Parts: sequence; structure tokens; C-alpha cells
Amino acid sequence: MAETFEPYPLEELLYSRLRTFEGRSLREVAFPLGGIGTGTVSLGGRGDLRDWEIFNRPNKGTRLPYTFPAIWARGEEAEAKVLEVRPQPPYTGSHGLDRTTALGLPRLEGALFRGEYPFAWIEFRDGALPLEVTLEAFNPMIPLDPKDSGIPVAILIYKLRNPGKGKVSATVCLSLCNAVGYGHELRFPRPWEGFGGNLNEFVAEEGLSGIRMTSTKYGKDDLGFGSMAVATSWSELTHTSRWIRGEWWDDIQTFWDDFSEDGRLTDHGDGTPSPEGRTDIGSLGALVELEPGGEAEVPFVIAWHFPNNVNEWDTAPEFRGKTLRNWYATQWKDAWGVARYAFENFERLREETRLFHDALFESTLPAVVLDAASSQMSTIRTNTCLRLEDGVFHAFEGCSETIGCCPMNCTHVWNYEQALAHLYPSLERTMRRTDFLVNTEPDGKMAFRTKLPTCCYVPWHMEPAADGQMGCIVKLYREWQLSGDRAFLEELWPHAKRALEYAWVRWDMDRDGVMEGVQHNTYDIEFLGPNTMMGTIYLTALKAADEIARALSDPSANEYRSLYEKGSKKCDELLWNGEYYIQKYDPQKAPKYQYGEGCLSDQLLGQWMAMVAGLGHVLPEERVRGALSSIFRHNWKKSLLDHENCQRIYALNDEAGLLLCTWPRGGRPALPFVYSDEVWTGIEYQVAAHMLYEGMIREGLTIVKGVRDRHDGERRNPWNEPECGDHYARAMASWTLILALSGYRYSAPQDTISFAPKINEENFRCFYSTGDCWGVFLQRLTQERMRAVIEVCHGGLRLRTLGLGWKGLSDEAVKGLRARQGGRNLKLKALRTEDGVLLKFERPVYVEPEKSLIIIVGR
Amino acid sequence: MAETFEPYPLEELLYSRLRTFEGRSLREVAFPLGGIGTGTVSLGGRGDLRDWEIFNRPNKGTRLPYTFPAIWARGEEAEAKVLEVRPQPPYTGSHGLDRTTALGLPRLEGALFRGEYPFAWIEFRDGALPLEVTLEAFNPMIPLDPKDSGIPVAILIYKLRNPGKGKVSATVCLSLCNAVGYGHELRFPRPWEGFGGNLNEFVAEEGLSGIRMTSTKYGKDDLGFGSMAVATSWSELTHTSRWIRGEWWDDIQTFWDDFSEDGRLTDHGDGTPSPEGRTDIGSLGALVELEPGGEAEVPFVIAWHFPNNVNEWDTAPEFRGKTLRNWYATQWKDAWGVARYAFENFERLREETRLFHDALFESTLPAVVLDAASSQMSTIRTNTCLRLEDGVFHAFEGCSETIGCCPMNCTHVWNYEQALAHLYPSLERTMRRTDFLVNTEPDGKMAFRTKLPTCCYVPWHMEPAADGQMGCIVKLYREWQLSGDRAFLEELWPHAKRALEYAWVRWDMDRDGVMEGVQHNTYDIEFLGPNTMMGTIYLTALKAADEIARALSDPSANEYRSLYEKGSKKCDELLWNGEYYIQKYDPQKAPKYQYGEGCLSDQLLGQWMAMVAGLGHVLPEERVRGALSSIFRHNWKKSLLDHENCQRIYALNDEAGLLLCTWPRGGRPALPFVYSDEVWTGIEYQVAAHMLYEGMIREGLTIVKGVRDRHDGERRNPWNEPECGDHYARAMASWTLILALSGYRYSAPQDTISFAPKINEENFRCFYSTGDCWGVFLQRLTQERMRAVIEVCHGGLRLRTLGLGWKGLSDEAVKGLRARQGGRNLKLKALRTEDGVLLKFERPVYVEPEKSLIIIVGR
Repeated sequence: MAETFEPYPLEELLYSRLRTFEGRSLREVAFPLGGIGTGTVSLGGRGDLRDWEIFNRPNKGTRLPYTFPAIWARGEEAEAKVLEVRPQPPYTGSHGLDRTTALGLPRLEGALFRGEYPFAWIEFRDGALPLEVTLEAFNPMIPLDPKDSGIPVAILIYKLRNPGKGKVSATVCLSLCNAVGYGHELRFPRPWEGFGGNLNEFVAEEGLSGIRMTSTKYGKDDLGFGSMAVATSWSELTHTSRWIRGEWWDDIQTFWDDFSEDGRLTDHGDGTPSPEGRTDIGSLGALVELEPGGEAEVPFVIAWHFPNNVNEWDTAPEFRGKTLRNWYATQWKDAWGVARYAFENFERLREETRLFHDALFESTLPAVVLDAASSQMSTIRTNTCLRLEDGVFHAFEGCSETIGCCPMNCTHVWNYEQALAHLYPSLERTMRRTDFLVNTEPDGKMAFRTKLPTCCYVPWHMEPAADGQMGCIVKLYREWQLSGDRAFLEELWPHAKRALEYAWVRWDMDRDGVMEGVQHNTYDIEFLGPNTMMGTIYLTALKAADEIARALSDPSANEYRSLYEKGSKKCDELLWNGEYYIQKYDPQKAPKYQYGEGCLSDQLLGQWMAMVAGLGHVLPEERVRGALSSIFRHNWKKSLLDHENCQRIYALNDEAGLLLCTWPRGGRPALPFVYSDEVWTGIEYQVAAHMLYEGMIREGLTIVKGVRDRHDGERRNPWNEPECGDHYARAMASWTLILALSGYRYSAPQDTISFAPKINEENFRCFYSTGDCWGVFLQRLTQERMRAVIEVCHGGLRLRTLGLGWKGLSDEAVKGLRARQGGRNLKLKALRTEDGVLLKFERPVYVEPEKSLIIIVGR
Repeated sequence: MAETFEPYPLEELLYSRLRTFEGRSLREVAFPLGGIGTGTVSLGGRGDLRDWEIFNRPNKGTRLPYTFPAIWARGEEAEAKVLEVRPQPPYTGSHGLDRTTALGLPRLEGALFRGEYPFAWIEFRDGALPLEVTLEAFNPMIPLDPKDSGIPVAILIYKLRNPGKGKVSATVCLSLCNAVGYGHELRFPRPWEGFGGNLNEFVAEEGLSGIRMTSTKYGKDDLGFGSMAVATSWSELTHTSRWIRGEWWDDIQTFWDDFSEDGRLTDHGDGTPSPEGRTDIGSLGALVELEPGGEAEVPFVIAWHFPNNVNEWDTAPEFRGKTLRNWYATQWKDAWGVARYAFENFERLREETRLFHDALFESTLPAVVLDAASSQMSTIRTNTCLRLEDGVFHAFEGCSETIGCCPMNCTHVWNYEQALAHLYPSLERTMRRTDFLVNTEPDGKMAFRTKLPTCCYVPWHMEPAADGQMGCIVKLYREWQLSGDRAFLEELWPHAKRALEYAWVRWDMDRDGVMEGVQHNTYDIEFLGPNTMMGTIYLTALKAADEIARALSDPSANEYRSLYEKGSKKCDELLWNGEYYIQKYDPQKAPKYQYGEGCLSDQLLGQWMAMVAGLGHVLPEERVRGALSSIFRHNWKKSLLDHENCQRIYALNDEAGLLLCTWPRGGRPALPFVYSDEVWTGIEYQVAAHMLYEGMIREGLTIVKGVRDRHDGERRNPWNEPECGDHYARAMASWTLILALSGYRYSAPQDTISFAPKINEENFRCFYSTGDCWGVFLQRLTQERMRAVIEVCHGGLRLRTLGLGWKGLSDEAVKGLRARQGGRNLKLKALRTEDGVLLKFERPVYVEPEKSLIIIVGR
């Protein structure tokens, strides 16, 4: 029997200070630095650079040989250390620790790591250094600006402070391996066939200097082609464009002896490329003089440029081995050009990224929600996602060891994703174009995976996915609501319509609004018979289609509406067991992989999608809440110590987690659907966010806390929630935690936005975004005064109506409600609604940066 | 400047209780189970089976899919758990944890692990189980008996006790994957091309039952050919010869549901081999009924039989790809035959192994010494070592990821090894035969690595190794002293003589007893000019050659002796810097990789070899002690936090370790010899043991403690000290810690043995071995009475003289000294010597089991 556990105490859940990492919890921290479609290198919790996934493929655990920051400082005595924290046990390895990590050199005592994606900060601690050292690391991220969120760089700013009473001389030095021609295995001094002809050159230009790393070995269409750079805008420099080329460890020994002696480097560069099978390391050091109390910021950029990706994941000859060129290569010629762009725009990129950071994190939302949403949006900028030459965005589900997994734009997994849709809606729309213009066949069947390049479509041979296919209709509606792009909608609708109506051929053959056919789905198996997981997505798709058809004057609207109404009623009558919604099926026809009487965490998946898209309830509200309660009661486990799971293992031992399914009333099939005993963060977030939408704050936040506690830096990396692959897209469902808690709803076609905070109503502050802007919503409610502000930080917001969740206002208060912008009162009509008040502006309001909209009741 | 650290307090160093492992320190524990030349599977600290290195190659980290012990027990309620401790963080993996580990199933709370090689014990702890469960695991190990120390099995004895008041029914079940045809990568459910045709059959015979695992795919000469078995002598059984063959995880789900329901299994076996690319899992369960207080021992054997190894490490066509057949395949037909042998001889093998264990561990030696010596002797029985069809023993230096490293019988690495020589001297002698009968060329140059098979010798193209080559002469002397085998000596001497005299061609061209030529050595570089590292080995070789030549009436003896005397004098005069011995060389001729003025930890390597071989001092005794003091003072670091090491990394951070070299008086070359800044356990042990020989107890034991503290189960595996590979042979220098502390010396040709304990003289007890026996030496000294006993546990010991380190005896006491055996007094003459007393028996004494020799002074 399942035990009932209480959710965590509310005050703990609402705690607003983000966690930090130190000691053991530094170990698994790997904070990805990279842009959209550029790949990433991760900043490890110790300040180390790891997981070099900049070569158009995932590659967890890689370290580039001898690539590390180092510091030399002379106060009373001279100290030289690798600018990383000491590693922790275990220290295993058949030949000891990998010596190209230079882990045999002295390092710093400890650090405090803070990560608020896209920024990471490390406060280093070391008793012997005469300086305080802090690192700020990021890659520019500006919602709605895919270009400046897609620069192939890692920016590392080392901040030094002299806390002592004497002058301190210091050098901060970054060494980087020229990895052009990199293969999957890289171990020095073993020659690697991809190397040879690697060339490091010191370059000094106005505003930046550094080492340009290229190779003479590759033509521009070769997969190995590319370049790297390490650069800085600091002007007092020391460098060696390459280390000596010696036997054994002559190279590192010579470098270290040179550096540690006086913090200055002898340049060994002679303009010759490396011999066959070998490459070179370059080191760039910034010389700093600090008076007592003095501070300095030394900015480094590591830039890369590897234009040519290749389809290694598809087997069909139309696709396999085809070159896929990265979009970023159309913007920058090489890595040095990237570095130059980064420094030319340095302050702007940093400022705008900080603006986004502040809008997101200077919030009264619970820390655990900000943590969940921000950490997972990073997936947009990992190897899970590609942006190709034509600007189109594609994505795997996640990343396997050295290849994406599984390809590509998987409709049912990306059903859960909501961060890209809300932060880079123009890119999300390219996915809809692929869905409907490439993958929808004449009969309406959709391929649920995209093959690249998309020029060569091959008919879909698998079962079509009922959840993925219906989800695409809902997502089309969402994109339209966010963007108001009618042309886009008109172009795609005929295809989407076919895709929707394909349901009547395949899944809802009797057109009663309930699917009973062979429903392939995100569990990689087929459900047979009616169930609300498919059912609610279908209902939401019908509701969305009704709205779209109505807007486009498509007469099918009525049919969709009537089917929706029939289906909703029938679903509820047929599948409610008094406690939650079940699946009806015939065990004779489906001996395996169903759930039947089980309590499925995803049973209201489509309902959650409806909430996010602003389509309201598709099943009776009280039943929805009842079912969510049951899901919490039965499926959430405070500890999994007694849980028996023969499937994949994403949570275990004393960890908390939400199981995909349980059978509290018995009736578990001998072989229920695969994954049923697993815990998936993507589902946990969709269920939790749904609970928040329905006002079940404690339950929802409890689930979120469970997820994030499992990703605590010691157990797992906080910036990577894997499922079928690292950086799994489904986890970006976490973005809707913010939408739900702020009661955000937006419709561009209607020029309307609403907020109705679910917590901290007296003092609420929160990020929001639309298809055209992003900013901050805030409200303060006191006995005397109510005040709401809509700030735009980027873009603009056109409004004709505004909804606020201010309930119980007196007639007088409603009448006295004022709206101000730029010091002027705006004319409006205020109406009391079920949810609060609705403000209708006499003339459209355009909210912009510095032109916030303020709503006031009272003084 | 090097800081001076005190050694650890003596009382801490002499602590006699062996450490145990729990909590975090369980994680890296991997206790190898396997015989000489059979490969191993390791028992993990959690009770898990890992590192399946039974397929003729190393493979750290492998787990066989779904291979785990499980327990079902019903007291008041029924519980089913995997009989392993819960894993510890991190829980990372791009697809979660490997599901074929079944880590999603409940496990036990904790455990206490004790390892006294060859035995490991785990006391499991779990609040929910109604039973106490303990595991005893071992592979039979009986010194001097290579056959019964070379059985390809892992024996696992689960002991159950019912501590409650009610009856308990239980099943202990072992599941094993039929891995015949195993490749290097094995992940379910992905098909593996080596599989298919795998056949599991349940077999019940008199005294054993189990599952025989074979494959129909391979002929007996194929590399994939082989068999496995899981068997027990328990008679009440439940089993399934194979799990169902299903999709997804139907197999494990069906198994676990079946097992956990009632502890009984449905047999799904139908005699059909597995389909292509797939294999099967079999499960064998022992049914146990326990009354309150009742106990049971359930013995399991996992046996394997993979006869065909292949030379994958040499590149020359004479060797590469050649099949090398394992010796064990000449003794047993298949794995089932192995299992049958194990159970037919179960009690004897367990008893004799226990006898060895007790002789070794029931000792008054410091725990840290027993730990160091016993843990590293395990290397004899890992993939570092091979025993081929013809019975000849060969060995790598250690093990890389999937191949031995480096091949083979490396003379200079195996210079340090002393465990095989003292425990399996007949096998060690086969190495000398290879050294001199295969690898010694007509001009006396020795190949310092052996190519297999040895039938096709190819002339040696590298530099010959001065240390390895001279060491072989010393080892020949040692083998002769241990065995007294004159025929062996006569056969090898002419070759050894050539090898020795090759020094005059290559290294000591001016025949002054000091080498100054190009001396390739164990640091993989060449020393130029005189140094005591080569010098002491050369001197010891000359001294050994003098003894051998004298015994064989070879007139060269005088020349060797005179050269030794000249060389010893010159070495000392030339290289003593007042504190330690240095190297003299010309930096013009040798710009790199020398040590010059450095304090080298190995500077007395040959002196240590001389002590072990019983050849006494080759340099002035007080200088030797002085140099050892300097080595401790300069090279031993209590912490490496400030140490700068650009080389390989075997010790770091706050760990203690003995550096290979330091330059306390300056003069460090810019590029000193490679490895100079590293820490090698093999050198630490040789230096430590040498210190013990010289009476520097605290310093020696401090070094040993430093090594073992680094291998604490959390940092590294206590049963694996890697250097250039796991299970590195050099670390078997640790065996000489026992020899040194007991003051053991033995000469079979002279029928003489001596003991002179260096610690705990009042109450000393210690293992010893000769070429023909092993047993226990003990002595108790009180004011009134002195008593020494020589017990033989195995074999026999023929003695004409016996030395005891009893100093300061009065004339009366010497006169009153009695020797007794079997209740009878033996006639003898007792002499006072510099080291104590020497007993000369009137007639040779033959000491055997149950016929101990007792020496008494006093009552």
C-alpha cells in the first residue's frame, strides 16, 4: 500500500534565497557556457573547464589537455597556483589521475559556487594567496534575441581584490589547447590523427589581444575545419603562443617553471604549425598591479568556430553523413571574429544579459522555482539543440555520450518543453514550420521525428504519435497567441488541420471526441483504448483548432467545438473512477504495456497544455483538482527506499520523486507500460506546474523541491536533468512554474495580458515574456493601496486589455482604479471579473523600456 | 626549501588491529577474487560483483548485466532485496544509472567490510530484514601450491542467522549473466555480436547443483570459447536456468516479481540457446529455514573457463594475434568441472586457505604492514599475471583499461617484486628461466621485456636495462637460496654469467666496479655517469655472482669479488655528498633526465635487494643509514598541498607520500628525470622495508602508513595500487616489510634460517616462508624465560643451523639453551654471534606440521 506523505512546510517551500554550492556539492556542478546552437563548455564547480562539447557533439567528461586558468601573485611572497579548487576523492585511474589535468600542481583551498543561469560566480578561498579572487562566467543570453544568445564563446571575468596593506603584483593566465581537428578521444602525449598543422598565433588588435588557433590541415568543408581563440581586452599582457614541443612532460614543466617564477611567460611561438598527430597549447596572461584595497576585472573570452556538423544519427542514405552547417558560421568568419565581436559588444552584451538575469532572479518567486526554471532553460543552449544555416532550430530529446539522443524535434517529448516557446518564440515557430510544412504527410500523418537535412523527406514508417501530433496543434495555437503572427498561422493551418483530422482516421474513428485507437506515445509504446493522457491533449487540440478556425473563418470550427464538447463529457463519464482518471482497455488485445486502473501522473497532460496555452479547462475543474490530489497522494514519494523499479533509474534510495504511475487500488498489469516505475523531471514539472495553476501550491512546490534536491551538486549536476539523454528537453516544462505562479496569460491577437499571482500577492515581482517583449510584473497590495507595474525591459507590449487577479475590490475601488504611463493617466474602463479585474484601455497602450504601465488603487 | 616532518607516533604505527570499511569508504573497495593466471571478478564494498576481468583481459568498471545476489526472507512480513548495500552519490549518467545494475530495486542499509586477503567479509546491516547476513568471499590461496591457488572461481559463502523469536524462511539467490562471447562493451538490451547460441542448463549432481553456461557459437580454439557456472552444494534449491526473453525489461520485471513474491522461482529454461546477439541470465536460489537462533551457511561458487588468451599487445607479426592458452585449461575441462573440483575439495581448500590466512594475520606485526603486504600480494592473482599452458608464469607490469601494461616480465619493474618469489618460488623460477634461457642474447645483452609466445625470440632493439639486467643476477641468487635447487642454478648460471659480464661491455667498460655508461633503467630514460641506484644493484649482482661462482667452482668468483670490493669503495668515495649519494654526470652529454645532486629515493635500491637476498651491506653501513635518514627527511612529505608535480599523479592534496627525488641542496636540472616528482608505492615500500632492515622503525612504518592511508576505500581501492597500470607489480615490494621486521634470513643450500624481530621482541609472532614450507615463527621473552617456536603449516623445513636475534645472553644462558621437537631434546651447539645466537644442530632437524621446533632458555 502506498503511504501518504505530507508535502513539505510552506515556509520552507517559499524560501527565496537561492542555494549555493561548496565542499562535496561542488563535484558534479558543470555549468554550461555556450549559445544557442553553438555547443558548450562547462564551468565545473571547482572553477575547472570541462565537458568540451563545442565540436558539434556531446562529450561529457572531456577535458582539453592542459587547458586551465592559473594565477601568480606576489605580496610578501610569490605564489603560483592553478586557479581551480583542489579536487575531491576518489583519485582513481589505472595510471593515476590524468596528468593533462595538471592536478599535480597546487590549487586553491575552496570555493563558493553560485549559479543563476546564464551567470555563474565562484568566490575562491585560499589562505596563501594575497588576493581575493572571484570568477564571473556567462554566455550572453537575451530573450527574443537569438543572435546575441547564440555566440560561440565562454566569457570568464576574473575579479581580483587586494585586501592587504601592501602592493600586489599578479598574473591571471589562461592556457588553452588548440583542439582544431579534435576527435572523440584525446589523450596526450599519444598522437591523435586529427592533429598536425595546428597553428597558434598571437594577435593584438585595438581592444583585444590573444591567441588565434587554427589548423592548416582542413579545408573549409571538412568536418575537422574550424578555429578557436583565447582573447582578452586587458592591455598589460604576457603570453606564449605555444608551449615548447618536447618529450615526456617537458612542455608543462617548462611552462610551469616559467610562469611560477615571476608570472611572466617566454613566448616560444615561431609561427610553425604543429607536427603530424600533435597540437599545441597557448597561454595568455594578464598582468595586474593592485594597490592596497585595489580591484581589477580581467575579462577572458574563449571563442570557437566549428561550422560543420554532420548527421551521424540517421541511418537512411538520404541523411547519413550529410553536412549540416551551423547558423553561427553565417554570422562570424572564424573564432577570432567571434572574439572580436564579443569584445566590441562586451558591455552591451553583459548589460543586457544582466538585465535578463535581474528580471528573472530579482523576484519574489520561491528560490526553488527560479532554480528549476532557469537551470533547465539552459538546455536550449546545449548540444540538445541545433540551429542550422537557414536559421531553423532543431533539437534532439537530449544528449547521449557522443551523439544527440534521440533525433529530432520529437513531437511528444517537445510537447512538455515551454522555455524556448516563451523566450525565443521565433525559433520555436521554426519548429512548427518543420512540423507542418515538412513532417505532415498528405493524409495528415505526422512524422514525429525530423530527419536532417529536411530537404529530403522520407515517408514515416513508424506508428504516428497521438500525443505528439495533437500536441503540435496546441503548440501552433500557443505560437499564434504569443506572436499574433497571422500570416504564420494562415500558412500552417491547412496542414495542421489535416494533422488534427488524421485523428479521425487513426485514433478517434467513431468521432466521439475520445481516442480509442492505437495511440503511440511518449512512453515509446502504444496505448489502446480511451485514456485521459491522450484524451486531454486531443480535447485541447480540438479547442485550439476551434479558436484558430474561428479566427481564420474556417467553417470546421463548429465541428471541432462540438467534438470537443462531446469528448470532454464522454471522457469524464467513462474514465473517472471516483478518485482519478483511468485507462479502459481490453487486456486480450493489449497484453502488455498499458496502465488500466493505474493513477497516471500524466493523466492530465493535455489539461496542463491547455492551461499554459490559455485554453482553460477541458475536463470539469473539480475533477481536475481531485485527480491532481490523487496523483500527489499516490505517486509522490518522500523516499524511494522501498520502491521497486526494474526500469531505468533516475531517482533512488532516500530521494523524493513523483512516480510515473501507481496502482493504489490494485490492478497493476504484470507488465505495465515501460517507464511506469520511473521518475522523470519533465513530468514532475508539468504536474507541479499544473498543481500551481489549480492553486495546490504546497503540493506543487513540494514536487519541485524533490527534483531540485536530487540535483544538489553531489548527487547530480544542477544544470543537467537527464532522461533519455543529458540536458533533456522535457525538463523545460519547468518554465511553466513561473507562468502558473504569476497567473500569466497573454494573447497577442487580442492585445491582452493578465497576471494573477498565486503566492506573495502583497509583494509580488516576477519575470514575464511575450512574443515581442520581456520584462517584469510587480504588484504591492496593502490595506491602503494597491499597485501593479508592468515594466518592459526589451521590446514592446501593445495592450488593449489588462487582467489583474485583484479580487474582492469594492465598487468604489474599481471605480477609483487608475492607470498611468510616463506621468499621464490613461483612459480605461475597469470591470470586475471572476478572476479579479479587467482593464479595457480606451486606446491601445504601448509599454516600452522606461515607459512602464502602472495601475493604482488608493493613494 | 623542504620542510622537515616528524614521523608518526610509534604507538600509532604499531597498532595491530586491521582497519575496516564502512560508509563512504566502501565505495572504491574492489576486492579481487580469482586464482593465479585466471583473472578475477571483484567483490565491491557494497557486496556487489564488479570488474569482470575473467575474460583474459583487464576491464575495470565492468558489471555483468543483471548479475547480483538477492535475498528474500519472511519473518513476520516478507522482504525481498538485492543483497547489496545501497549505492552512494553521485547518481549520474546520460540515461540515469545503468539499469542492468538493478539499482532501482531495494537494497540493504549498510555494511562493514573487512578484507584480509585472500578473505573478505561483509557484515550487512538492515533494519527490515528478519535475518543477520554475513558474506565470506575468497579464492583458495595456499602458498607453494600454485594449482590450488589457481582455480578460476569466486567463492561466496552467505551466512544467515535468525536473531528473532519466530521462524524465518529465506532464499538467497545469485543471478548470473551467461557472458560467453563477451566483448569489451556490454550493455543490455543492445545486441552484442559475440552473443547468440548461449545456453544455460540446470545441472544437479552428487554434492553440487547449479547452472552450467556455455555457448554453441564457438569452437574450442576460438577466442570467445569458454564456459561459466554458478553452483552450490546446498540441496534445497529454487532456480530458473534462464530468465524469460522479452522486450524492454520484461526479463528483470518477471524475475523480480516471481522472486519477491515467495522467494521461489519458476524455471523458464527450455533448453534452447539464445537468439543471435542476445544472451541469458540464470538464477540459483538456496531455500533456508531458520528456527530462532538458527544459523546456516550457503556456499556459492561462480566458476569460469576461458582457455584462450591472445597476444594483443605486441606489434611484431611473430607475436601479434598468437593464441596463448591458459594453464588452468589443462587442469579443468570447463567451468562446470571447475565448480565440481571446488565443491569436491571445498572444506580442504577453505581450511588450507584459512591456515594461510591465520598464519599471516594472527601476528604481532603492525596492522599497516600486514595490510600492505597482503593487499599487494593479490596482484599475483590479477590480470597483471599470466600462467600459460606450459606452466610458465609471465607478467605485465600492471593493467591498463583493457590490456596489460606493459608487457612482459619487465626485468626492472619486477626487480622490486618479492611476494611471488617468497610465496610461489617455483613460479618465480620460471621467470628466471625466461630471463636467462630466452631473453639473454649470445653477447649477454638481455631483452628486458619478454615477447609471447617465447618460442619465437626476436633480438632486442632497445637499450638494455642496467637495473633490470643486474637485478636478474640477484634474483637468481635469491631463487637458489630459497630453493636450494642446484640443478636449476647450474643450468642458468652460464647465461647469467654472460648477462653479468655484459656490464663490462656496456656500463662498466673500465671495470672499476662502477657503472658510467648509458644506463637505461626503470624510469624509462637513461642515466649517464656513476650513481648508486645502478651502482648498488651492480655491486649486489657482483656479490651474488661471487657466491654462485664459488658454489659452482667457477674461477671467475675472485674477479667478481675483487670488482665488488673496488666498486664499493669507489662508489662511496665518489658519490657520497656528506648526506646522501648523488649522481655524477656531464650536463653537456646529458642535457635532460638526470638527477645529479638530487636525493633519490631509489639511491640504495640494490642495497635493499642485497638485504632481501641475505647478501648484507654493499656500501658502508653507517652511510646507508645516513642516506636513508636523508631520504626520509627530504623526500617524505606529510602533505603534498604545496608540491608542484607536472608529471603523473599518484598522490596529491593533503596526502602523504615519498617523492622519487628532491634537490634539498639545489641543483635541480631544468628537466630532471621523468617521474622524479611522482610518488610510487613500490619505491615507498622498498625504501620503508630498507629502513626497517636498518632499524629505522618509525620512519619506515610512517612511509607505509602514508601509502595505505591513500588507499582508504574512499580515495582509492585498498586492493589495487596503480602505477603504470592497475595492480602494479612494483608494489609487491611490500612483502619485504614482513621479512625485514622479522629479521628473516634463509639459505636452503646451507639449511639455515634466522629470525631477529625488529619490534615486539617480547611477544612476536609472524608468518614466514621458504622454498619448501611456510609457517609461523613466534617468540616470547620474559625475565625468566625465552622461548621461540618454529611452526610449519605446509611443507617441511630442513635445518642444520638456526639463528635467533637474542642478544646479551649470559654464558650460562647460552649453555642452558634447549631445543625440543616432538617432546625430545635435540643435540646442538649454541654460539654467541654479533646478531644474537646461532644454534648448530648435531643432526639435521626436519620441521613439519605438528612437529614444531621449540627453543627455550630458562624454565
